Amino acid sequence: MRKILVIGSGKSSSYLIKYFLDKAEAEQLQITIGDINTNNADALIGNNTHANAITLDVFDEQSRAEAIKNADIVVSMLPARFHIEVAKDCIKYGKNMVTASYVSKEMQALDEEAKAKGLIFMNEIGVDPGIDHMSAMEVINRIRDKGGKIILFESFTGGLVAPESDNNLWNYKFTWNPRNVVVAGQGSAAKFLQEGKYKYIPYNRLFRRTEFLEIEDYGRFEAYANRDSLKYQHTYKLDNAKTMYRGTMRRVGFSRAWQMFVLLGMTDDSYTIDDSENMSYRDFVNAFLPYSPTDSVELKLRHQLKIDQDDIVWDKLEELDVFNDSKMVGLKKATPAQILQKILMDSWTLGEDDKDMIVMYHKFGYEIDGEKHQIDATMVSIGEDQTYTAMAKTVGLPVAIATLLILNKQITTPGVQIPIRKEVYEPILKELKDFGIVFHEKKVPYLGYNPLNA
Amino acid sequence: MRKILVIGSGKSSSYLIKYFLDKAEAEQLQITIGDINTNNADALIGNNTHANAITLDVFDEQSRAEAIKNADIVVSMLPARFHIEVAKDCIKYGKNMVTASYVSKEMQALDEEAKAKGLIFMNEIGVDPGIDHMSAMEVINRIRDKGGKIILFESFTGGLVAPESDNNLWNYKFTWNPRNVVVAGQGSAAKFLQEGKYKYIPYNRLFRRTEFLEIEDYGRFEAYANRDSLKYQHTYKLDNAKTMYRGTMRRVGFSRAWQMFVLLGMTDDSYTIDDSENMSYRDFVNAFLPYSPTDSVELKLRHQLKIDQDDIVWDKLEELDVFNDSKMVGLKKATPAQILQKILMDSWTLGEDDKDMIVMYHKFGYEIDGEKHQIDATMVSIGEDQTYTAMAKTVGLPVAIATLLILNKQITTPGVQIPIRKEVYEPILKELKDFGIVFHEKKVPYLGYNPLNA
Repeated sequence: MRKILVIGSGKSSSYLIKYFLDKAEAEQLQITIGDINTNNADALIGNNTHANAITLDVFDEQSRAEAIKNADIVVSMLPARFHIEVAKDCIKYGKNMVTASYVSKEMQALDEEAKAKGLIFMNEIGVDPGIDHMSAMEVINRIRDKGGKIILFESFTGGLVAPESDNNLWNYKFTWNPRNVVVAGQGSAAKFLQEGKYKYIPYNRLFRRTEFLEIEDYGRFEAYANRDSLKYQHTYKLDNAKTMYRGTMRRVGFSRAWQMFVLLGMTDDSYTIDDSENMSYRDFVNAFLPYSPTDSVELKLRHQLKIDQDDIVWDKLEELDVFNDSKMVGLKKATPAQILQKILMDSWTLGEDDKDMIVMYHKFGYEIDGEKHQIDATMVSIGEDQTYTAMAKTVGLPVAIATLLILNKQITTPGVQIPIRKEVYEPILKELKDFGIVFHEKKVPYLGYNPLNA
Repeated sequence: MRKILVIGSGKSSSYLIKYFLDKAEAEQLQITIGDINTNNADALIGNNTHANAITLDVFDEQSRAEAIKNADIVVSMLPARFHIEVAKDCIKYGKNMVTASYVSKEMQALDEEAKAKGLIFMNEIGVDPGIDHMSAMEVINRIRDKGGKIILFESFTGGLVAPESDNNLWNYKFTWNPRNVVVAGQGSAAKFLQEGKYKYIPYNRLFRRTEFLEIEDYGRFEAYANRDSLKYQHTYKLDNAKTMYRGTMRRVGFSRAWQMFVLLGMTDDSYTIDDSENMSYRDFVNAFLPYSPTDSVELKLRHQLKIDQDDIVWDKLEELDVFNDSKMVGLKKATPAQILQKILMDSWTLGEDDKDMIVMYHKFGYEIDGEKHQIDATMVSIGEDQTYTAMAKTVGLPVAIATLLILNKQITTPGVQIPIRKEVYEPILKELKDFGIVFHEKKVPYLGYNPLNA
């Protein structure tokens, strides 16, 4: 029996655990799922004898060490900031480790020790980051093998509601951490590279500088720029690429409407509102508008943001019931962002029968024999229900597949890493196809950002 | 002879030193001016025998202690962050101290010790903060003495170019630290109180929610909200006031044009631009606009910000020469704010013959015997030349007058303080009149923020 320790059994672990359980017999696996609360794990395990749930507080050194010592490989599905203690124990007791999270500085610092001990610390192997790395590197390396030179790379991902459950004006529901959606794009300007020029978009323009993306059978999407589009430029060996752009996908019209919240200041997470607890939703809106003894909150808002009476963004606002004067915020000393999140959760929480959807869109521009070409690759994954979501599938399956490949010594390169090598992405992308996670490629004329080249 | 030590002899010390020199004979003063570079001090002293300049590095403990021990009172005109070392020595050697700066936490922490030793640490006694405190408290206390209850307090200050030197489209030149102007309003939302309601303006709306102010003989001004209008609510004992608003004054139209820089992201000071050194002004503007192989920077900017071809803000941009492709930024790894500051300094630096102007506007709304009233008070001070500026006058004179009043034991209450007590503001405001720093009061109908009350 090979022993897998999974730490954390939250929303994104359903497919991961299911994958292990389905393979347990044939692959001789014994899965231990450690969490501070075992309810979710118990439900996912059912009466499968190849798995057991244990109560595990990751901050309790002794029980954490005990569980890790006992395992052949460790999967951490905890929030990113909790990985490091697990990782240190994995070094200590000589265990391989897999996470879906970004490589933190602390994690990166373990690289040398991991290599010295021949250990594999695989990170960023969920959906974004994860499937994006693998699917991009697969195409990039294929182009390079043919002698092509990458001149443009754009990559977009979105966590959205599935078309069959898409029944509000925003074409959006929360399928992951709502907080990340509310504060998205804040901080420094978004930075990217277009035709060799560095470009910067400040937060107040981020949701107005979107671009359109079309996915066959799924229609049109839009995307706004991520904070740092250049993050993987060096890792992907794209230092000579002239265009590097990464973005977040939404349905068309979301960003133009979201801009209202940005302009009003409702997404600000940097200060708290004194009496937020006793504010109505209407009071909250009014706090961002000038005082008037007579004019309505509605007209003041329309005037401030110059919203025509027949503009659809207005209907979107009304759908959220933000002008309601009896619905109370009920949060003590909350930031505007926290209050907005609460208001949005009233409307954007997935219903019991709702399904989610993950969409991904890559553009690869390349030059070969002096000619420019472009490949667009798209992927859509739709969830089954509220447990087996597209998010859990696209995060959990690559983690699970990687774990088994490491156990079976098909992935062998040691060190702290992300899935950009063939040894890793090739077998994983292949197996993901069995689960319907497939990229559709299309050759398109190279446009870049230069329509005259068309 | 009473010995005054002035530490720091920068831009704002000309009137301060002149005041002491003019009074030196009659008041038996010996003034020592310590600075790391004595050039400016030497020029201001001329051949006056009542004063001498010494080289003083405020971080050199021994010479600092020596100079302070030797003085009867210490005036610190250093940047705010340098006061604390001086203050600690003043505690140690039992000296009174005067500064024009905001009371820092470290300074406030010395209050108990200062009181125990009977020492006066007077702060915030320049123009803003300073003259604003004194002139406001004078009116507030007068209203209270008559049994009135303050329901509204608004206060605005501006450092501007004098009308006779006002010859650009922005009606603005830098009369103080340009950096503060470029980054003004960033960080948390501006917070204030209007008719009992807390209101918040995010940075992206700050320069669009201005209000107009009219000063007789000087015409119309506009004001945008300061970060924290409630800062002195408790200090002024205005806890029951329903409207509290503090703002910064500009000539009308400045803010609407400034908003272009805000929207483009050019005022951002949170990140650096890699190759800023080799950028032209035009490249800098283009970095905030989408790439195009054909469209001009001009048209892209007009389109992004929806600027009509005949809008005056466009002329304001052109006046700054921001589209010039041969003027180079020439700053290494600069933030957008630093680059913008450089561009603005080309156009907004005071010429040799230019004069500056300080304007202040207070509104006091109050209730007496069930009736509402309002007093508006305004002050305008115009500089003489580039040495004897209005800024130096309004900052330096209150500091100087307070220093002499303390020396002459007419101000006697010990402790770390700001000039809100009658003992302080009454004699100072009276003497400031001799220098033309006069508030003109006008009774106006109480409007508050409620035009229906008119």
